Amino acid sequence: MSTEFFSYAGTVEVGPRDGLQNEATLLATETKVEFIERAVAAGVRRVEATAFVHPDRVPQMADAEAVMSKVPRRDDVSYIGLVLNARGFERARDAGVDEVNAVTVATDTFGRRNQGTTVEEGVAVCGDIVARAHQAGLPASVTVAAAFGCPFEGEVGPRRVAELARRIADSGPAEIAVADTIGVGVPSQVTDLLGRLREATGDLPLRCHFHNTRNTGYANAVAALQAGVSWLDASIGGIGGCPFAPGATGNIATEDLEYLLAGTGVRTGLDLARLAETGRWIGERLGSDVPAQLGRVDAFPRRTEA
Amino acid sequence: MSTEFFSYAGTVEVGPRDGLQNEATLLATETKVEFIERAVAAGVRRVEATAFVHPDRVPQMADAEAVMSKVPRRDDVSYIGLVLNARGFERARDAGVDEVNAVTVATDTFGRRNQGTTVEEGVAVCGDIVARAHQAGLPASVTVAAAFGCPFEGEVGPRRVAELARRIADSGPAEIAVADTIGVGVPSQVTDLLGRLREATGDLPLRCHFHNTRNTGYANAVAALQAGVSWLDASIGGIGGCPFAPGATGNIATEDLEYLLAGTGVRTGLDLARLAETGRWIGERLGSDVPAQLGRVDAFPRRTEA
Repeated sequence: MSTEFFSYAGTVEVGPRDGLQNEATLLATETKVEFIERAVAAGVRRVEATAFVHPDRVPQMADAEAVMSKVPRRDDVSYIGLVLNARGFERARDAGVDEVNAVTVATDTFGRRNQGTTVEEGVAVCGDIVARAHQAGLPASVTVAAAFGCPFEGEVGPRRVAELARRIADSGPAEIAVADTIGVGVPSQVTDLLGRLREATGDLPLRCHFHNTRNTGYANAVAALQAGVSWLDASIGGIGGCPFAPGATGNIATEDLEYLLAGTGVRTGLDLARLAETGRWIGERLGSDVPAQLGRVDAFPRRTEA
Repeated sequence: MSTEFFSYAGTVEVGPRDGLQNEATLLATETKVEFIERAVAAGVRRVEATAFVHPDRVPQMADAEAVMSKVPRRDDVSYIGLVLNARGFERARDAGVDEVNAVTVATDTFGRRNQGTTVEEGVAVCGDIVARAHQAGLPASVTVAAAFGCPFEGEVGPRRVAELARRIADSGPAEIAVADTIGVGVPSQVTDLLGRLREATGDLPLRCHFHNTRNTGYANAVAALQAGVSWLDASIGGIGGCPFAPGATGNIATEDLEYLLAGTGVRTGLDLARLAETGRWIGERLGSDVPAQLGRVDAFPRRTEA
């Protein structure tokens, strides 16, 4: 199998955070920790483990400290805590995360509703979090949410996102991510946006976060890898749904992405069978069929016929 | 929106044939005709309307002549009949199809089970059908089924498929299609195979047929369009499942593909709202939720922010 298509991809497992946060079923802390243990056993090396946000606003993440106190600590596994402000950063640091991920939103309306900040305020808050992370010796990434579209303001143009990324890059994060939070982007937009981001941010590592809400998530992932992005967010089982589209599918599924990557000849270190088994397992815990296909159909083991 | 990504795509609506053939629910002829009428009203201009095969083997297609006698005839709409042998061709011709699509399978085991022919026999039969179509003044396309993998023999290499296509091309079909019948291919394989097919078949029009069984179908479609293929098969609702994988999703959905194409700036003449409505409608007729997403979530109407 040729690897010319793209030769490297790493995944950040966001099932424990973005996945569970958008599911109606509240899981016990022990179940969340087992989810993370299973992900690590399946080869995942970066995990967005939880969010340090207000428990009244996001009850699914109220046990952030308890989760972090129980995850399996390994030198080769990095646990990321999502934080939205200085208080969240302090909690994450004290809970012993390996990285923080700050979030700003590309539109004022969604930003105010999601986290109480306008775009301008979000850039400032992210800069503050990055500065605090530098002081604490923690890598900080910044995610631009709604980078392709906003449920309230409609389409978000790539120029706006690239300008936002340029300003975020000035604060010195370790990585910038763009998130298609509501799953509206298509591959040509991914290609276009990433080209502009590359110009705007130099050689800063980029990460992409796609939802499969309109069945474009995997095609977008391929476009991102072809554009030279090395890291993709994905959730085991494809859990997560979309708070703005009841019944919609969630993040791209780690197991389905791994099927595609393995078929492309990209070595990720992920164990497809274990991922698929964990996708079925988390679906049972959530009481629903998960969107991932690889828990439903076999992985079609490959020979190498020319 | 840039159209550099790819600038043209046509779809062949295969819901009435590949879609319905693989659904457990038998629909009345009138319902099938209404499905086709709705597809045409949504802008579809090539429809694989039915298959002229033995009713004992494929009861879903037993009313092929009745369906063809009732579809709305228009100068700008081409109805395709799937045929597997001379008898099927004669039936299709007599029923007044505008095109025929012959099928050969890339492996002996699947070929014998699907249609009672080895690869060698299938090439000969397709050549015979193409010759008969020439005589009758009908365009004939040939589809190579299981072109990425076979449920019995495993992975199918691109060299084998390209050689098969070269021999089929010698018989003079109007178009050659490659079908990922069991939904195992990934985009890098699509790119690779289409490059070899182009070499093997010169400037013969190519068409691709993808199933979304492992969530690679839309990424494969994009890879095919980027490789210069102009025509893609798709089914409204994404109906069709997979006879070898119970519970699996079917063909790529016409409405979800159109969402992607519209976002890319490709003008197809398709009406997304009507496609999505028809996807919901056929799901009700079949008594199941269809895999298409665009009947479930909105089309996110676009502005043109830079």
